[in-house]
Amino acid sequence: MPDAPLYERVAFIGLGLIAGSMAHAMRRGGLVGETVGTARSADTRDVAREIGLVDRVVDSAAEAVEGADLVVLAVPVGAMGGVAEEIGPKLAPGATVTDVGSVKRAVIEAVGPHIPEGVHFIPAHPLAGTEHSGPRSGFATLFDNRFTLIVPSEGSDRDAVGRLETLWQGMGAHTEEMDADHHDLVLAVTSHTPHLIAYTMVGVADDLRRVTDSEVIKYSAAGFRDFTRIAASDPTMWRDVFLHNKDATLEILGRFTEELFALQRAIRTGDGDQLFDYFTHTREIRRGIIEAGQDTDAPDFGRAKTK
Amino acid sequence: MPDAPLYERVAFIGLGLIAGSMAHAMRRGGLVGETVGTARSADTRDVAREIGLVDRVVDSAAEAVEGADLVVLAVPVGAMGGVAEEIGPKLAPGATVTDVGSVKRAVIEAVGPHIPEGVHFIPAHPLAGTEHSGPRSGFATLFDNRFTLIVPSEGSDRDAVGRLETLWQGMGAHTEEMDADHHDLVLAVTSHTPHLIAYTMVGVADDLRRVTDSEVIKYSAAGFRDFTRIAASDPTMWRDVFLHNKDATLEILGRFTEELFALQRAIRTGDGDQLFDYFTHTREIRRGIIEAGQDTDAPDFGRAKTK
Ligand SMILES: NC(=O)c1ccc[n+]([C@@H]2O[C@H](COP(=O)([O-])OP(=O)(O)OC[C@H]3O[C@@H](n4cnc5c(N)ncnc54)[C@H](OP(=O)(O)O)[C@@H]3O)[C@@H](O)[C@H]2O)c1
Ligand SMILES: NC(=O)c1ccc[n+]([C@@H]2O[C@H](COP(=O)([O-])OP(=O)(O)OC[C@H]3O[C@@H](n4cnc5c(N)ncnc54)[C@H](OP(=O)(O)O)[C@@H]3O)[C@@H](O)[C@H]2O)c1
Repeated sequence: MPDAPLYERVAFIGLGLIAGSMAHAMRRGGLVGETVGTARSADTRDVAREIGLVDRVVDSAAEAVEGADLVVLAVPVGAMGGVAEEIGPKLAPGATVTDVGSVKRAVIEAVGPHIPEGVHFIPAHPLAGTEHSGPRSGFATLFDNRFTLIVPSEGSDRDAVGRLETLWQGMGAHTEEMDADHHDLVLAVTSHTPHLIAYTMVGVADDLRRVTDSEVIKYSAAGFRDFTRIAASDPTMWRDVFLHNKDATLEILGRFTEELFALQRAIRTGDGDQLFDYFTHTREIRRGIIEAGQDTDAPDFGRAKTK
Repeated sequence: MPDAPLYERVAFIGLGLIAGSMAHAMRRGGLVGETVGTARSADTRDVAREIGLVDRVVDSAAEAVEGADLVVLAVPVGAMGGVAEEIGPKLAPGATVTDVGSVKRAVIEAVGPHIPEGVHFIPAHPLAGTEHSGPRSGFATLFDNRFTLIVPSEGSDRDAVGRLETLWQGMGAHTEEMDADHHDLVLAVTSHTPHLIAYTMVGVADDLRRVTDSEVIKYSAAGFRDFTRIAASDPTMWRDVFLHNKDATLEILGRFTEELFALQRAIRTGDGDQLFDYFTHTREIRRGIIEAGQDTDAPDFGRAKTK
């Protein structure tokens, strides 16, 4: 435990996977004083109270941020602006507001105007998640050894940025700073477009008359099983991601279909060499990821055995 | 251990992931008498000898099948015909020849003509794998609780089919019989097209000038990490799969791009409802897979922690 808490009072707006995991990780590290939280629905707030997700659950965002020196916006990207408008007038001078949204430029544009003078707004994005959501889905180790990207603006207070980075490191993450537009492009490649593709492939499988859903389910081999997991992610979150990272996603999708058509033509014309070369090349990226320690290469992907 | 071995002598042609896992699983279950094997290269044969992958490693396929009552073709799909031609004249009367290829119609057409009268040819396909290959990659539990599809033809000897199914069950698999063309369509949906898509997405990421490979590697979130794992699979095996399951793969690819364009348009026009509905729908398939016991829903996908 550090000598003094990094923040005296942390307010979570939204109590889902990310906020819950942060609350667990803060507790594990003894990083902060009090944690306060709220969610949109009474159901979620009740569950959070019942399981003691944060020290104190309150009924509105305005109430939650009172006296907080760190406010974490952990709602879907499309809801960030509305929340910021509600809490803006209640923010304590000198406080830091951060968010965990999967898109950064659109969140900055929606939230920024509501942040009063004297309050630090420092966007962030933890690159860690599962396909689960809600107040029971969080766990303390979610961020361990993953990256959290911090997206300060040019005029950001360096002390405030440093403190937030220390918090994320205390929750187990590596931190790096990145510009908002570059963030959105990188994530379009590594996360947003892959998700859209996985959703599409699962939709196609479901749609195909000559193959029943139960066949798809029973016989889903490695490839497809991974896709269905990705495609089981929260629909609201992902709708918002695509609507708010539109340009980068559409750009990467354009590149993707171009390449896919080239491989499709290689299959049609029987050009085995082109396929072989392409597949050999993509292996290298995987090696890099394993060497960077971002995944395991245990058999069956280190997945726990199912019974 | 069963009262009597199911087969007195099993010959493996090819000593990679699938053959190796079968040999381990047969040993675990005490299912067969002697195991014999061969591979194309002296290197692989040497490794197999060193680690005792099978009881006896020999230098040619013709030698391996001598006196075997079960012959397992475990080479890439495109190599099956050549192997069958070589071993055809050496096969013992009454023996069973099976294969483990990921495509069935093309293998039947390539192998069938070389199988002499009085020898049973019963194609099969275990729906289990990893992205690893070679003689050291196999393990005894690979097939546990996975399906193996058996693809007999109309005139197949029912005793011979039953014995092969019993063997696969002894190796931990569930077995089902399926027609070759339907097999190829189902696999195009659940495995072949997803692999092509994953290869493509990883290729796009690698190609993008404004995002470095090291960024892609460091910041690869859940979605993309799964793709890179899929895209790390053996290039020879996958080249052969696409060249030999061309029609079904091209058909499913056509459906895929059609759907992808519809979602792309929804993003461009900001149609959040369409995206939300689509994503909600795909969740259900995932639920089905978990209920069918084909995957785990443990946090972080049950993956072993990396250090
Ligand atoms: N899941 C991931 O993999 C992941 C990874 C990195 C970043 N993120 C980002 O983290 C943020 C939260 O995601 P999550 O996975 O934690 O989601 P989640 O588990 O679905 O939780 C979302 C929370 O936001 C609340 N909420 C939803 N709509 C709201 C609104 N209009 N106004 C106020 N509160 C609202 C929900 O309240 P109710 O429960 O009452 O509806 C819930 O408590 C998103 O911006 C997402 O992009 C997610
Ligand atoms: N991997 C999977 O996920 C998976 C799943 C289900 C079915 N399958 C099918 O199983 C079969 C084997 O795959 P695998 O994963 O076990 O592959 P693997 O680990 O790469 O092993 C392939 C074996 O075949 C030998 N071989 C390659 N080309 C040959 C040729 N032209 N003539 C003779 N032998 C040759 C190789 O010998 P050398 O080592 O000497 O080159 C090696 O021993 C393929 O048909 C594949 O479609 C694979």
